Amino acid sequence: MLKGLTRAGLGNVGDIEQFIALASCHGFQSVDIDLAGLAEGRGVEGAAELLRSHGIVPGAIGLPVQWRTTDDEFRKGLPVLLKNADLARQLGCTACTTYILPSTDEPAAAFMASAIRRLRLCAQMLGAYGIRLGLEFVGPHHLRTRWKHPFIWTMADTLDMIEAIGEPNVGLLLDCYHWYTNGLGTGDIAKLRADQIVHVHLNDAPAVPVEEALDNGRLITGEGVIDLTGFLKALKQTGYAGVLAQEVLTQQPPQEPAEELVRRTAVQYDRLFAEAGIGG
Amino acid sequence: MLKGLTRAGLGNVGDIEQFIALASCHGFQSVDIDLAGLAEGRGVEGAAELLRSHGIVPGAIGLPVQWRTTDDEFRKGLPVLLKNADLARQLGCTACTTYILPSTDEPAAAFMASAIRRLRLCAQMLGAYGIRLGLEFVGPHHLRTRWKHPFIWTMADTLDMIEAIGEPNVGLLLDCYHWYTNGLGTGDIAKLRADQIVHVHLNDAPAVPVEEALDNGRLITGEGVIDLTGFLKALKQTGYAGVLAQEVLTQQPPQEPAEELVRRTAVQYDRLFAEAGIGG
Amino acid sequence: MLKGLTRAGLGNVGDIEQFIALASCHGFQSVDIDLAGLAEGRGVEGAAELLRSHGIVPGAIGLPVQWRTTDDEFRKGLPVLLKNADLARQLGCTACTTYILPSTDEPAAAFMASAIRRLRLCAQMLGAYGIRLGLEFVGPHHLRTRWKHPFIWTMADTLDMIEAIGEPNVGLLLDCYHWYTNGLGTGDIAKLRADQIVHVHLNDAPAVPVEEALDNGRLITGEGVIDLTGFLKALKQTGYAGVLAQEVLTQQPPQEPAEELVRRTAVQYDRLFAEAGIGG
Amino acid sequence: MLKGLTRAGLGNVGDIEQFIALASCHGFQSVDIDLAGLAEGRGVEGAAELLRSHGIVPGAIGLPVQWRTTDDEFRKGLPVLLKNADLARQLGCTACTTYILPSTDEPAAAFMASAIRRLRLCAQMLGAYGIRLGLEFVGPHHLRTRWKHPFIWTMADTLDMIEAIGEPNVGLLLDCYHWYTNGLGTGDIAKLRADQIVHVHLNDAPAVPVEEALDNGRLITGEGVIDLTGFLKALKQTGYAGVLAQEVLTQQPPQEPAEELVRRTAVQYDRLFAEAGIGG
Repeated sequence: MLKGLTRAGLGNVGDIEQFIALASCHGFQSVDIDLAGLAEGRGVEGAAELLRSHGIVPGAIGLPVQWRTTDDEFRKGLPVLLKNADLARQLGCTACTTYILPSTDEPAAAFMASAIRRLRLCAQMLGAYGIRLGLEFVGPHHLRTRWKHPFIWTMADTLDMIEAIGEPNVGLLLDCYHWYTNGLGTGDIAKLRADQIVHVHLNDAPAVPVEEALDNGRLITGEGVIDLTGFLKALKQTGYAGVLAQEVLTQQPPQEPAEELVRRTAVQYDRLFAEAGIGG
Repeated sequence: MLKGLTRAGLGNVGDIEQFIALASCHGFQSVDIDLAGLAEGRGVEGAAELLRSHGIVPGAIGLPVQWRTTDDEFRKGLPVLLKNADLARQLGCTACTTYILPSTDEPAAAFMASAIRRLRLCAQMLGAYGIRLGLEFVGPHHLRTRWKHPFIWTMADTLDMIEAIGEPNVGLLLDCYHWYTNGLGTGDIAKLRADQIVHVHLNDAPAVPVEEALDNGRLITGEGVIDLTGFLKALKQTGYAGVLAQEVLTQQPPQEPAEELVRRTAVQYDRLFAEAGIGG
Repeated sequence: MLKGLTRAGLGNVGDIEQFIALASCHGFQSVDIDLAGLAEGRGVEGAAELLRSHGIVPGAIGLPVQWRTTDDEFRKGLPVLLKNADLARQLGCTACTTYILPSTDEPAAAFMASAIRRLRLCAQMLGAYGIRLGLEFVGPHHLRTRWKHPFIWTMADTLDMIEAIGEPNVGLLLDCYHWYTNGLGTGDIAKLRADQIVHVHLNDAPAVPVEEALDNGRLITGEGVIDLTGFLKALKQTGYAGVLAQEVLTQQPPQEPAEELVRRTAVQYDRLFAEAGIGG
Repeated sequence: MLKGLTRAGLGNVGDIEQFIALASCHGFQSVDIDLAGLAEGRGVEGAAELLRSHGIVPGAIGLPVQWRTTDDEFRKGLPVLLKNADLARQLGCTACTTYILPSTDEPAAAFMASAIRRLRLCAQMLGAYGIRLGLEFVGPHHLRTRWKHPFIWTMADTLDMIEAIGEPNVGLLLDCYHWYTNGLGTGDIAKLRADQIVHVHLNDAPAVPVEEALDNGRLITGEGVIDLTGFLKALKQTGYAGVLAQEVLTQQPPQEPAEELVRRTAVQYDRLFAEAGIGG
């Protein structure tokens, strides 16, 4: 498994090049970044060279398609999807992710039918570029009633939705925060096949009752109460060999410098990898 | 288009052979019957000969699979589906139908994902036998709140669900009662392609406000307030050439003899076909 | 059914606007043209207005994707496919077509697998724009051995390939020349469902043995030996209501002025429509 | 990875119970057997108990469907497929396999289209039971010209066919003999994802030129010239954690007693597992 970072929760990590250098400098092997931004000015070859020179591989790109509203909006994103997929392919990135909010203002059943229909097309298009689509279930309790109708937030329902999409290159984006707020255990992960996991997010939760853990109230990986050692051991058991990208959503920007936050993250990753028996 | 009957609302039409004879005798060209029952004792050849001798073709069979509960229940129905599909194929029946209730006790979004996944497999299996699957949307207002969560009841949402299923052999079972209780117009039908319609149900509604029309409060086709001439004209415009099967759901069994009810239906079918300019 | 023209075999029909005017002037209702070319300079609204003012609807666009060579070449065409599909959608065009050569230099089985995989993605993308994909089987005998390995050229094999693609919006482009050179009869058409036919090409064959009819040795519709009245009657029977676009492939450019050739075509279309009992 | 046996090449291994006992006694963890035969007389629970008591899990079942001839023959097998899938599910077997001959008497392109269409349905039906479908490419050179037309025999073409089938639960049955006769290297395996491999066959080849290695001229695993240590190391690298089932096809039944052959196989498996660094 690869140690990875996203920008979330790290404050001002600078421009893309500085972020890559910072990640690399602290032993991370992957970053989730805007590949179009990376290639801008540098070209694809320059972007590839920059990554290579820092020993960094790209993690996942975000799905640049609006699949939650109208067919018109959805269609507008498709050319961008092709463009980003092509770039990702050239830069060796094989994962694209999107999240599923646990409630919605749309009628839930019809929204699910549209979501399945639209995400299937996205998956098919990504498949032509050798890219997999990871769907992230979102666990925090407060979001389940945030919009009018409950949608889905469990891993089981998300796996069922993935099966309904029916494409070979769709799986989970597994975020430990959503695993935790769903009250899942290590056994729930261990029974997954590696290919059902497209991407993984790491972070941590404060010592509040799980029902009160806010989506944007996350802590640096390893500095909270989530059983991350168990989480990683279970992941290892599945055979998952992809990226573990830290994503720390917070209400306020952090006070400390980015460098310090990355350093703290690195320390925790090292500890957790050691505890879980994962070769770094 | 073919004039067709189901048993619904006709009282005691006798055994299968008597029902076929009755339908034939009054100018009907199709019946929706239990093909397994028809073949029982007679064999497939005997069943085919009985139909042929009365000039009757089979309309649609019902989907013999429980797609609304658990995967275990669902799997139990699959061998029956194969058996019935094989029989239908041999007897020249090319339509299989199921209905979608407008509310459900299951969480709506997850139920939609399961429904899509399961109905896709049914469609694929039916496809191997040259049979299409028709999904019936159900319009009556009282059923929309009958179970805990709203599901879908509009034609548009059902077409979206069909697209999400994504198989070439899935379309609508269009019942004029549900068209009427949805407040749809002839233009909504006319813009369909013929291949989007797998089967059609005819019946009629009493002169009550549309919101109060009960699912099991139907009248004989042509004896109520639904604009059936407009409905049929619009159907004709799509190029639909299949069966129009009467289905009259009622709370109480009818008082009159079946023969009289079939006769009244035949009179109305003749009138409506003439008014809509459909060659009988 | 709509009377349609392509440029093929008509010589110099002028620019797009002149071609549209010429078609309209002789009673044609549809043209197969380059929609991007039409919109260039005029914008989408201008293009729509030009078509509207001549009473012309767009027929089919060609599939702008190289699905016959490498995955790299294939991917290069996908953005163009999206662009053209979007334009087609805005201009009310719902058909996109490609042809399948009856022999190939590629190993036949592997080529079929690639073709199915790639054309499925094209169909899925087109589906998001409400566009159907028509596959044209190519009958002339000389092409069956033109390249190293036989591929497919019959209607039955093409329908099987369409079923293997498995998408709801894929059907045939039915060209009377290929129907003729395959030795098919009117019964072969009559048993199709309307939705299995996405687009139709008309033209004619010279009085040579059918095995010697060259792909680029075609005549103006109705001026040769193909039983076009039977062809059209059978089409009518299916319920097909789309475009009949003339496509006359020839070795040499025609000697006569385009206007005269269009006039002759119009005369024949009128005669054939009358003979086949098709309302013009 | 699990050490597994098929009956092939072991001579008279006795009835199912004796075969299971023999395998277990020599340290094997899995057998590929006829599950219907196993359950016959014993019932599903008895069959499960017999396997459990010997520490044996079922490997793969064969696809009981004729997908190579007519649609009629194909349909005949579907009820058996459901029955076997249901049994496999209850006994914890998650793999079903079939092989693809490298040449065929059918026209190759049309045969590929039919194969894709039929195997897709099989995969979908198996999927409802949590079972994956493994396709075995067949490498021996003499079979490539055994029937009229070349079909496919490479791993790359088989992966392309799997992609054309397009279902999430289809992958390879990887047999080292076909890997060897295709002239593939360890790098070809190492670049597979674990989920692309459904089942693995082990056996060995005599010291003849690779072009002359006969399909039914195989040796006991580890007693021939195939680089099985490299093969297993590469498999390990993919993360594959399934069964390695020995399958030794021979022209004549072996002379030695089954017990001796199983013993020799066990010795070789132990050696190879040690050399490849696979925990037994």
